[in-house]
Amino acid sequence: MSTTKPTIKDIAKRLGVSVATVSKALNGYSDVNKQTKARVLALVEKLNFIPNQQAINFRKKSSSLIGLVLPQINHFYFSILAEQVIGFAEKDNINVVIKPTFENLKKEIMALKDLIKQNVDGILISLSNETRNPTHLIETHKMGIPIVEFDRISKLSPLDKVTTRDKEAAYKAVQHLIDRGKKTIAHLRGPLLSQNFVDRFLGYKSAIEEAKLIYDEALVIQIQPNSLEGAKQAFLKLFKKRPDIDAVFAVTDITAVGALEALKENAVKVPAQVSVVGFSNWQLSSLVSPKLTTIDQNPYLMAKAAYALLKRNMSNKESDAKQVIRIKTDLIIRESS
Amino acid sequence: MSTTKPTIKDIAKRLGVSVATVSKALNGYSDVNKQTKARVLALVEKLNFIPNQQAINFRKKSSSLIGLVLPQINHFYFSILAEQVIGFAEKDNINVVIKPTFENLKKEIMALKDLIKQNVDGILISLSNETRNPTHLIETHKMGIPIVEFDRISKLSPLDKVTTRDKEAAYKAVQHLIDRGKKTIAHLRGPLLSQNFVDRFLGYKSAIEEAKLIYDEALVIQIQPNSLEGAKQAFLKLFKKRPDIDAVFAVTDITAVGALEALKENAVKVPAQVSVVGFSNWQLSSLVSPKLTTIDQNPYLMAKAAYALLKRNMSNKESDAKQVIRIKTDLIIRESS
Repeated sequence: MSTTKPTIKDIAKRLGVSVATVSKALNGYSDVNKQTKARVLALVEKLNFIPNQQAINFRKKSSSLIGLVLPQINHFYFSILAEQVIGFAEKDNINVVIKPTFENLKKEIMALKDLIKQNVDGILISLSNETRNPTHLIETHKMGIPIVEFDRISKLSPLDKVTTRDKEAAYKAVQHLIDRGKKTIAHLRGPLLSQNFVDRFLGYKSAIEEAKLIYDEALVIQIQPNSLEGAKQAFLKLFKKRPDIDAVFAVTDITAVGALEALKENAVKVPAQVSVVGFSNWQLSSLVSPKLTTIDQNPYLMAKAAYALLKRNMSNKESDAKQVIRIKTDLIIRESS
Repeated sequence: MSTTKPTIKDIAKRLGVSVATVSKALNGYSDVNKQTKARVLALVEKLNFIPNQQAINFRKKSSSLIGLVLPQINHFYFSILAEQVIGFAEKDNINVVIKPTFENLKKEIMALKDLIKQNVDGILISLSNETRNPTHLIETHKMGIPIVEFDRISKLSPLDKVTTRDKEAAYKAVQHLIDRGKKTIAHLRGPLLSQNFVDRFLGYKSAIEEAKLIYDEALVIQIQPNSLEGAKQAFLKLFKKRPDIDAVFAVTDITAVGALEALKENAVKVPAQVSVVGFSNWQLSSLVSPKLTTIDQNPYLMAKAAYALLKRNMSNKESDAKQVIRIKTDLIIRESS
């Protein structure tokens, strides 16, 4: 290529003034001759000159970047969170580096190292299902990097956090099934390590117990929260052993769809014989037949709260008293219940 | 916070040596005393010191960043492309800033400006449906920033490009419907501005014509490629006027699902009475009932080729003869055809 991006030096050279003068003119200092300032601005306009953010940042020791660490991008809920966070950051002229971990702790640790190296001004992180110990978060924070956990958080870390009211949401979902007259409610639960999945299980259990129904361990099976086929096979087995099941509360929409497919295969009528409720209000939940009752997690509110906390911490207003913000959920009743 | 990220200065100070010595020790120069080097490395290890990439980059005039401009992130296909590009970039210690445009040309232009400001080393861009004129791409490239278009490309720009063999794929999809004995095949087409959607229409038309069927303009309607409800309503109208339609080729999976819902509402048997084929092999295509026949676009190959071209261009090996790489597709036959 023959042309390259013009620099502040090029502009100074072409106008026969110093680099400092150009810089002052661009930054609105008053000690620059008005005529010179006008010439600088005209040439800047003509050359379509954009000041190099990296040079500016190097001076102000900011990178205008934040990091966003997520279990996945190809995921209905996390991709909405990513879009929302980017939207809020753009209003502050901040760009977002996204690091997916694919539910892998080693990748999560590497992601934090990469972001520290990149000198990001702050980090938003949603933990992998493998993450038990938050040492890597605490170490990153000790280096002076503002960090806020969101959605998948650790109970063990002393950081600011934003999460879903999972227990309350699960309680609401199961209460709804009980209101529909269901008595033998199975739960497809997620891995034991993710606090969200634990809380959803606790919400299920407490709704059952408060309704004076019998909590039966045999009705709770653990499945992979992203695997439709896994959930389908697991529920087929469970339903064979326990044909008295009259409702299913699944930890995610995709596993709820797995249960729907298992019921379809057994020619069981939904919701008349068995009702099904999912979690997260993925697009697919309104596309399957019957349309799935589910919990909406309000990702806009989640992203807004997480970004606001991070921004406060980046402005050195981080307080020692850490906050945990819990986002409200909505029960979306559709055809499956 | 009491602790902060240690700097190279802190290390020099604690060891009573110069910053230059620490830097040389870290970078493996031979003119540093072996013992000093060992002391530096031991302290670096102890403090968990990570060299500041921004300072390194400022010296080498690279940011270790590339920009990824996409129409959406909350989109099954684009989110896979994003994950793949990030995976390839990570192997080269490059981070990825993602800028969604939400199909908005103004946002696309702003995204390029933001990325130039951030001093990214290169840009991968998939155009918005609003983008007709590629001036902003050409201007960015003239500034010396390597840029590669992928998936949604412009025919008018003199840049390296990677795209799907859309015409061939659409031809294959429609040929498959013709092989099934279908004769009155409707096409739900996308906006006129996106080359991909134009090519899918051309593939449809050429399959119809080569099979000596009659190309009938009235069977082609334009819909929003991301709107299930829009496609459903549009197809309901069309099918009322033309109940002789025996197959539908839709420009995306989500609009194909719209057609499926319209047919379900009319109690039309799929595929016996009307067959439906979509495009892109979204997850939902195998979750709906009947499962949807579709085209797989091989996003892994797309991301790999686009990143490889960008990497070549970033190594100053950009050639004047621009390349257009076209990625192969696969027809995935399921229950809807």
